[in-house]
Amino acid sequence: MEAVVNKSFTENLGKKLNSLKSKNLYLKDFFNTWDKTGDELEIVLTVADALKSLRGGNFSTKIFDSGLGVSIFRDQSTRTRFSFSSACNLLGLQVQDFDEGKSQVAHGETVRETAVMISFMADIIGIRDDMYIGKGVAFMNEVAAALDEGYKKEVLPQRPSIINLQSDVDHPTQSMADLLHLSNHFGGLENLKGKKLAMTWAYSPAYGKPLSVPQAIIGLMTRFGMDVVLAHPEGYEVMPEVENIAEENAKNQVGSFKKSNDMKEAFLNADIVYPKSWAPFEAMKERSLLFEKNDAEGISKLEHELLKQNAEHQNWTCSEELMKTTKDQNALYMHCLPADITGVSCEKGEVDEDVFEKYRVPLYKEASYKPYIIAAMILLSRFPDGNAVLNNLQKDKQNRVRYL
Amino acid sequence: MEAVVNKSFTENLGKKLNSLKSKNLYLKDFFNTWDKTGDELEIVLTVADALKSLRGGNFSTKIFDSGLGVSIFRDQSTRTRFSFSSACNLLGLQVQDFDEGKSQVAHGETVRETAVMISFMADIIGIRDDMYIGKGVAFMNEVAAALDEGYKKEVLPQRPSIINLQSDVDHPTQSMADLLHLSNHFGGLENLKGKKLAMTWAYSPAYGKPLSVPQAIIGLMTRFGMDVVLAHPEGYEVMPEVENIAEENAKNQVGSFKKSNDMKEAFLNADIVYPKSWAPFEAMKERSLLFEKNDAEGISKLEHELLKQNAEHQNWTCSEELMKTTKDQNALYMHCLPADITGVSCEKGEVDEDVFEKYRVPLYKEASYKPYIIAAMILLSRFPDGNAVLNNLQKDKQNRVRYL
Amino acid sequence: MEAVVNKSFTENLGKKLNSLKSKNLYLKDFFNTWDKTGDELEIVLTVADALKSLRGGNFSTKIFDSGLGVSIFRDQSTRTRFSFSSACNLLGLQVQDFDEGKSQVAHGETVRETAVMISFMADIIGIRDDMYIGKGVAFMNEVAAALDEGYKKEVLPQRPSIINLQSDVDHPTQSMADLLHLSNHFGGLENLKGKKLAMTWAYSPAYGKPLSVPQAIIGLMTRFGMDVVLAHPEGYEVMPEVENIAEENAKNQVGSFKKSNDMKEAFLNADIVYPKSWAPFEAMKERSLLFEKNDAEGISKLEHELLKQNAEHQNWTCSEELMKTTKDQNALYMHCLPADITGVSCEKGEVDEDVFEKYRVPLYKEASYKPYIIAAMILLSRFPDGNAVLNNLQKDKQNRVRYL
Repeated sequence: MEAVVNKSFTENLGKKLNSLKSKNLYLKDFFNTWDKTGDELEIVLTVADALKSLRGGNFSTKIFDSGLGVSIFRDQSTRTRFSFSSACNLLGLQVQDFDEGKSQVAHGETVRETAVMISFMADIIGIRDDMYIGKGVAFMNEVAAALDEGYKKEVLPQRPSIINLQSDVDHPTQSMADLLHLSNHFGGLENLKGKKLAMTWAYSPAYGKPLSVPQAIIGLMTRFGMDVVLAHPEGYEVMPEVENIAEENAKNQVGSFKKSNDMKEAFLNADIVYPKSWAPFEAMKERSLLFEKNDAEGISKLEHELLKQNAEHQNWTCSEELMKTTKDQNALYMHCLPADITGVSCEKGEVDEDVFEKYRVPLYKEASYKPYIIAAMILLSRFPDGNAVLNNLQKDKQNRVRYL
Repeated sequence: MEAVVNKSFTENLGKKLNSLKSKNLYLKDFFNTWDKTGDELEIVLTVADALKSLRGGNFSTKIFDSGLGVSIFRDQSTRTRFSFSSACNLLGLQVQDFDEGKSQVAHGETVRETAVMISFMADIIGIRDDMYIGKGVAFMNEVAAALDEGYKKEVLPQRPSIINLQSDVDHPTQSMADLLHLSNHFGGLENLKGKKLAMTWAYSPAYGKPLSVPQAIIGLMTRFGMDVVLAHPEGYEVMPEVENIAEENAKNQVGSFKKSNDMKEAFLNADIVYPKSWAPFEAMKERSLLFEKNDAEGISKLEHELLKQNAEHQNWTCSEELMKTTKDQNALYMHCLPADITGVSCEKGEVDEDVFEKYRVPLYKEASYKPYIIAAMILLSRFPDGNAVLNNLQKDKQNRVRYL
Repeated sequence: MEAVVNKSFTENLGKKLNSLKSKNLYLKDFFNTWDKTGDELEIVLTVADALKSLRGGNFSTKIFDSGLGVSIFRDQSTRTRFSFSSACNLLGLQVQDFDEGKSQVAHGETVRETAVMISFMADIIGIRDDMYIGKGVAFMNEVAAALDEGYKKEVLPQRPSIINLQSDVDHPTQSMADLLHLSNHFGGLENLKGKKLAMTWAYSPAYGKPLSVPQAIIGLMTRFGMDVVLAHPEGYEVMPEVENIAEENAKNQVGSFKKSNDMKEAFLNADIVYPKSWAPFEAMKERSLLFEKNDAEGISKLEHELLKQNAEHQNWTCSEELMKTTKDQNALYMHCLPADITGVSCEKGEVDEDVFEKYRVPLYKEASYKPYIIAAMILLSRFPDGNAVLNNLQKDKQNRVRYL
């Protein structure tokens, strides 16, 4: 089977890529979406879409003949782990997991040293570190500084790029996959202008879910002219610095950023709803301090309080009635998965079974973009001209599956 | 070194493949051997043999330029794990293990969701789930249904094929490797007609070994004109539905399927003996129920009873005396390994050390076919014409090891 | 970007390779450096350097189109694990880790069997087994014998080569990486003649560090005309058989091998210092016996005694004052990493923070050679003529990173 892609589609992608400017992707890390320009984000989306088309058309997209994609997961993961593996495999990199359990990364000195030790043949390092406030970004910065030094001192033959696979602050591979889903769902980024997106807290019996998803959503979606509402019960504030970013974003756009303590208000006439549990920022800060002090009793007490606090807001759930108040009773429901579904995965949770079931396939679609977003981030951090790479791949017409 | 295979050998394989009909391999799962026609099974054996020859002749057999082979092992495994890895590597797929310990697959909803989440770039999914009666096949069916839906709803760009790496019912990669061993040992499948195969229970101090091996053997070997005897102490029955399949198979062949409670009778004049421990079906059913109810005390009690019951049958062992009663005192001894060897791995076990030692090398040979059987299953589930793929590989003459 | 290497550099490497004789690399295992001739060791170093240049010049060095590099780590590892992965990836092999936790390797019979089971498609097997005196080499020999038999009996299509990734006796991938570092630092192996190397014990609060590093260093460095001093407190002797090897080596060279119980004496005018903690050989022998007898109380008592014994020698530390007594106050400080750094990773350790910090980048460089040393060992054990392979790689000019 000859490798085939829709020619006009790829020509359009090429034209789009040529019209966009990038200074901060090639040989750069990807920590937060707000570190990148709007053009740069569009380039990532466009390359992700192009890679998806190429693979769908049975093109090989191996741009590395060998090389390592090192992953550091400091938290459990299925979706992101598979997405990172898939992305690396798609481009020809071998994943090598750095399992801290089989090593010891205890203090600054050793992070610095270890970062170099695992990077002699690494092209990419993907890091998930989302558990403790103030820790994830700090860890990534520490790794980045060590790599900078290693490269400068000619110990590393190249400076591997770091991709944030979820920090305590941002979750860019998730929010960019979400954005690509929105763009494809509504027929283009330009159609997102004026759409109302409700990023709302929702009740879950689980405790201490990361803040990075709501922060990633308000930090990114406010850049595309949407009317973004962040709604949560009092006491469930997210990081002020990210709220500030969202506010600044909105100022530069046709859209807006608003906060609310009323889920109903947020859902009213919303085009998109993203109801999801998270832990209060202040409590998470306190928890980080307790962990530092190794105060098991204090942690246990805090968890108890937080669960009690959560339980007061069981009415924050994405019910069918609430969905009926959205635009045309038909808002697009989003979630990073897995969701806590009432009557399925828990007694009472973030969303009713009927609502979840109705949106299950779109949710799968939303998730399906993540491997391509990560692959695009890798490609654009290692090649100066993404469009040239895509053209070469199309010209070479190597099949992913041979002899078909 | 130029890539070389014995030309007449591969021509014969090609002729054989052209003469065989297949409807149920391409884009299909491989759950049980009895879901496939005799022609289809012969195709798998032939392609496995051809891949072995090609690799032996230093041909590259990479038919995938990238792609994932996802493995889900819900039980410990060395042999099958390495066989699956080897098969994937042989064809160019990257293994990505889905480790449930790093995730949570608790109930139906999540299996369905997870199956899709790990499959966005998967070509193949290999599943071992053999621990609980009624669970393994159910799990595989659940995954299959989720993949069907994901593909139909255009969430998955392709429907990955599932290979059963051992369920509670069948163990097709084992029994097919065993069959290839028999075919090569006796000079062809046609020479298996009229051979007596004794699949017998044997004593082991370990408790609760899966039923899938004896079931796989009686469900497969009854299709090739052999006289298959299933022998075990009373109370060690296998699943009735598989016994029925074996009986039906035998009716359509020159061979036969008989049951016995006498190991001596089974061994008498046998051409092939396969003595191996397993747990009683009824007890395993009970155990599954106890696990569902989380009844630790009940389980402990059942285990105690089963070990006691086992101990009453220590004379069910493959001794040299017993081997002397077989055809020409020289039956082929088979085992899926590892065996419980008396005086080596346990005080009293399935087989005497002398017998095991005599057959050690043939046992290794038996095991050596499994990677190629799995590779053949993968190839035939992803390509409509196995023979064309093999011809292309031979024509292209890419070396596996370059510059030799 | 066209693949480029410095032509005169690679020509020189080629000339060197042509002038050296090897009988014991191709299709051989690499257990101890003293099993190899000086020429053979130089070949390994030269090929390692060449592979580093080729990768630096964006050459693909994939000599395997598929194939497995099996790793068996019976001890924690970051550096060596990543080095082995990197080496395999560089050459085109897929790492498959044999995790004994997911299997059972309990006694001789099973080691023999398992060695074959994991080797059907293996080209290389890397083994780390350094925990117990008398065990590591024994295990490797057992695996080797099983592979020999498997190949002889035509169960294995090829005999995979074993690389010692650290045994109880030698740590050749470490010492060869160290040697390549020395050679590049001092401008060639010939410049090592007459250099004084102090391999000294140093205090660490950790207990029971392997002997293989000091043994590897004295067993290797005494072959290149260096004046090697092994210094340690009384009672911290290494294996007598390796001391004998070092003595024999020295006799055949311009250099020398001396022992001392005085760290200051060892450091005086040294060109190179390698201060590192290890456990006393006699105590390690006793510990192995206690483990065999499963004597937890005895082990605990021994550990207690050893820690107490260690604590008596806290003055054996690599301080700045001591460094001032070395040649030109500027000896090259070496360590296999991670080091126990006073005030950083422990209260009192092997080395002062200032010393470590001064040599941090050279230490990284030292470590950076290990992947290439392992890759060279793999290449030379699978190809009869390393130089021909390197020439072919240069001629073919495949890029590692395409479309750059």
